[in-house]
Amino acid sequence: MSTPLHLRDAHVVIVGMGLMGASLGYDLRGYCRKVTGIVRRPEAIDSTLASGCVDDVTMDIRAAISVADVVVLATPVRTILRQINDLGPLMKPGCVLLDMGSTKERICQAMDNLPEEIQPVGGHPMCGKEKAGIEAAEPGLYYGCTFVLCPLPRTSDQALALIHEMVAHIHAHPMLLEPQRHDRLVAAISHLPYLGASALVWHVMNVAASDPLVWEVAATGFRDSTRVAASDVQMLLDILLTNRESVLEAVDNYINLLASFQDALLQNNEENLAKQLEGIAKARRNWMLGAKTH
Amino acid sequence: MSTPLHLRDAHVVIVGMGLMGASLGYDLRGYCRKVTGIVRRPEAIDSTLASGCVDDVTMDIRAAISVADVVVLATPVRTILRQINDLGPLMKPGCVLLDMGSTKERICQAMDNLPEEIQPVGGHPMCGKEKAGIEAAEPGLYYGCTFVLCPLPRTSDQALALIHEMVAHIHAHPMLLEPQRHDRLVAAISHLPYLGASALVWHVMNVAASDPLVWEVAATGFRDSTRVAASDVQMLLDILLTNRESVLEAVDNYINLLASFQDALLQNNEENLAKQLEGIAKARRNWMLGAKTH
Repeated sequence: MSTPLHLRDAHVVIVGMGLMGASLGYDLRGYCRKVTGIVRRPEAIDSTLASGCVDDVTMDIRAAISVADVVVLATPVRTILRQINDLGPLMKPGCVLLDMGSTKERICQAMDNLPEEIQPVGGHPMCGKEKAGIEAAEPGLYYGCTFVLCPLPRTSDQALALIHEMVAHIHAHPMLLEPQRHDRLVAAISHLPYLGASALVWHVMNVAASDPLVWEVAATGFRDSTRVAASDVQMLLDILLTNRESVLEAVDNYINLLASFQDALLQNNEENLAKQLEGIAKARRNWMLGAKTH
Repeated sequence: MSTPLHLRDAHVVIVGMGLMGASLGYDLRGYCRKVTGIVRRPEAIDSTLASGCVDDVTMDIRAAISVADVVVLATPVRTILRQINDLGPLMKPGCVLLDMGSTKERICQAMDNLPEEIQPVGGHPMCGKEKAGIEAAEPGLYYGCTFVLCPLPRTSDQALALIHEMVAHIHAHPMLLEPQRHDRLVAAISHLPYLGASALVWHVMNVAASDPLVWEVAATGFRDSTRVAASDVQMLLDILLTNRESVLEAVDNYINLLASFQDALLQNNEENLAKQLEGIAKARRNWMLGAKTH
């Protein structure tokens, strides 16, 4: 058997019916030959079917992937790492394996150890919500978002073309990146902001210990600055622990930048502070003007 | 002359036709006897009048405040400090002076030096936008927001009652706070988040120096985490420099919290990290459930 030429001929199996997996199901169902969802808990079967995001649902992951043309792993990063090892040998020759994990270096390393007849592509759609789960899933979640792809040197052109077709079909923008480069970039724009937001909330918790009124004066600025601190912790732990070096480096630099704000304030160095903050505000505004995600 | 008993009998002069001043004008015009707006630049006169947020507009601040029953200073904090000194002696006896500056300790100190027949009340409505200026102003901006009030020991009950009537009329929620306490709380929920967001953008600027693609992978999480970094820098400088001690203390604690995340990551202390992040995510969710500003 071999990799299908077109997505519409493919039987796609999506492992994990959370926000990302179920949303992908909504977008692929009816276009692909068949879309199967894998769930872990028996009580999820009926509700997943009822949601309409897939053609069928099963807990029998081994049986399902053995007949799949495309397997999409939409589980937390460390589960993906385990599933690549456990499930890889059960997939049929020519099958394309895509993951949607938020870090890529360790996942692509694991993919490189797959049996050679499997076609792996690392993926990371740069969208999400702080709400997790199938209840938060929706058709069009990927519309307009950047979808990072990390094909391996071993990945066939045909497999990569099939994934490009999937990305185009869900109206996302593909961006090819080396796994290490991806991980360094997302440390800056996602993992550091998560820790930064979490430390903001933690600081307010500290202040609240002696003055609980602090929660009542917090307004929209605090709400937006800390939105990502409400993300799913288990998912984020997987991300932080599989991207440790880049995250540590980012936090190091972040602390240095905060310390230089402190120095300027301590020295009443208004000119320096103004220049720095103006440059930052301008960079932020320029990014928004060019950003696809408003 | 004396403090009016009711807001509807008052001639209100609003100094500064920016986001806050013009929005207040929209809400008070037609209810108060007269609402006058003060602008600095001649070219702002016609556009301010045309916007409809006040009954009349003038650049002659001295003449305007000499006949006002209520003067509202809606200018940046250090301008407010100067205006309290310069304009206080020109106001008529019984006149109520409210400011809307984002820090309160130094403003309330300056208010305490006013001639004794002036009735000062420090104020800080906890709302805003990252867009400044009259173009961003709108009726209802204050609807549902917390409006901090810092009356001075010298402030008469009648003056404070008049300001309470104003806060009620614009559908804000009054919160009486000591100036120092206010400043410590807003350092935690507003000034620290501003510096934190600015340092996030600064870090990405550093990363972009060697890899400009970082701006393209940034998505909605980064957007929300850094929204406040696009705030008006001059306004924020005034805030930071008039709340230095509380801000420095907050940044100190913030850096310590970030360092403890680093330690846990370095030691692969997943249990600790999970416990801490779960507690933070829960606190953030609980705040949102109770928050007035969704």
